[in-house]
Amino acid sequence: MRTLKLTLEYNGAGFSGFQRQKNGRTVQEELERALHQFLHEQVAVIGAGRTDAGVHAVRQAAHIRIANPMAAEAIGKALNGILPRDMAVKKVEEVSPDFHARYNARGKIYQYYVWNSRVRSPLNEAVSWQYPVKLDITRMKRAAKMLTGRHDFKSFQSSGSSKEMSTVRTLARLEIHKKGQLLSFLFEGDGFLYNMVRNIVGTLVWVGEGKLSGDMSALFQARDRRKAGPTAPAKGLFLVRVKY
Amino acid sequence: MRTLKLTLEYNGAGFSGFQRQKNGRTVQEELERALHQFLHEQVAVIGAGRTDAGVHAVRQAAHIRIANPMAAEAIGKALNGILPRDMAVKKVEEVSPDFHARYNARGKIYQYYVWNSRVRSPLNEAVSWQYPVKLDITRMKRAAKMLTGRHDFKSFQSSGSSKEMSTVRTLARLEIHKKGQLLSFLFEGDGFLYNMVRNIVGTLVWVGEGKLSGDMSALFQARDRRKAGPTAPAKGLFLVRVKY
Repeated sequence: MRTLKLTLEYNGAGFSGFQRQKNGRTVQEELERALHQFLHEQVAVIGAGRTDAGVHAVRQAAHIRIANPMAAEAIGKALNGILPRDMAVKKVEEVSPDFHARYNARGKIYQYYVWNSRVRSPLNEAVSWQYPVKLDITRMKRAAKMLTGRHDFKSFQSSGSSKEMSTVRTLARLEIHKKGQLLSFLFEGDGFLYNMVRNIVGTLVWVGEGKLSGDMSALFQARDRRKAGPTAPAKGLFLVRVKY
Repeated sequence: MRTLKLTLEYNGAGFSGFQRQKNGRTVQEELERALHQFLHEQVAVIGAGRTDAGVHAVRQAAHIRIANPMAAEAIGKALNGILPRDMAVKKVEEVSPDFHARYNARGKIYQYYVWNSRVRSPLNEAVSWQYPVKLDITRMKRAAKMLTGRHDFKSFQSSGSSKEMSTVRTLARLEIHKKGQLLSFLFEGDGFLYNMVRNIVGTLVWVGEGKLSGDMSALFQARDRRKAGPTAPAKGLFLVRVKY
């Protein structure tokens, strides 16, 4: 058996997320079906993490273990010939047999886009969250700075993950950039709680609007999801890279 | 009667171009229908120029002449409430009664995107031309430099415009930028012949591939469309701005 690492790009709009499920089209299912088609073996695709329904990926990572000796590059080409237009395999690499896309991941980079204008943008609509109220970017940047570092992000975790685990994470970077009416949020961290990026974006937007205080330490202490801002919609979120 | 200038954004994918026609959905038709719905008068929308089927607009310009005294800003809001999701009015301005979106235009800025990779990009697919062969950007930039200035662009004009008019235009800027696998071409000029931007992009791509010589002066002299490169697909083209 050999292990291959896959780097994937997909447009999240047409997927019920990464992970296979009973109902709804998923990235994993499309990949497994395509692999089976030319490898003629049942292949399990293990992602670096799930992305939710509607979330996009610039470079998601995954691994497969197969017996077939076909060259890695040829597998990539074969896959891209079969896969639907809204997903592609950017790279297939031979890796050490014990490589695991989830367990070996050292960190992730996400990007989130907010279209901050009263007027909707038809060209950005599918890939951003339109927020019509004027936002105080300076205030948001100040709060973002308080969020970076090692903290208990319990207030930014959506319910739905039933496991009782540590909610302490390290957010190495959280940068806000403004280009015209488009705000981008860059996140880099060692791990993210369920909906953590989208909940932080929703919180920062409320801070920018003045609906929430910019004092993030109070939110860390509260450990209460209801004290933070709303969950920003999935369509504005991109998994940019998984670090190993 | 008063004259209003409209600034429009649209995603070209769902339109058979800007200008009203017998078959196919157009930007002009959607606008005129929406205006009629709340102004209760027949309004003709005059665009700064046509965009072809599939071409996007970041800031297209148009004008209307109406009798209704409704405030410009209120017209914009009303329009955006009615218009379909793939188009929006970014601004409505009161202008001098004799303002004409086409005749008063002093120049236009276009942008074109090429995704230069063997692997298709699901996230860029709808807004770029995938070109799988490696391109020599230095060679392309050199040719682009030769294209700027005042020239007879006859070789870059697609047939289909029946009028016998001058084919001399001034291309004030033609810049090529590379960011990862995404190439962007920025055009600024006083006027563009039919398909001129897309024909120049197709030509520059062939120059970059080595299929065409980088000697643009020979193309100017030839005045023959068949000597230049192919017409790049519409979906990679954006009308960025109309200058007045």
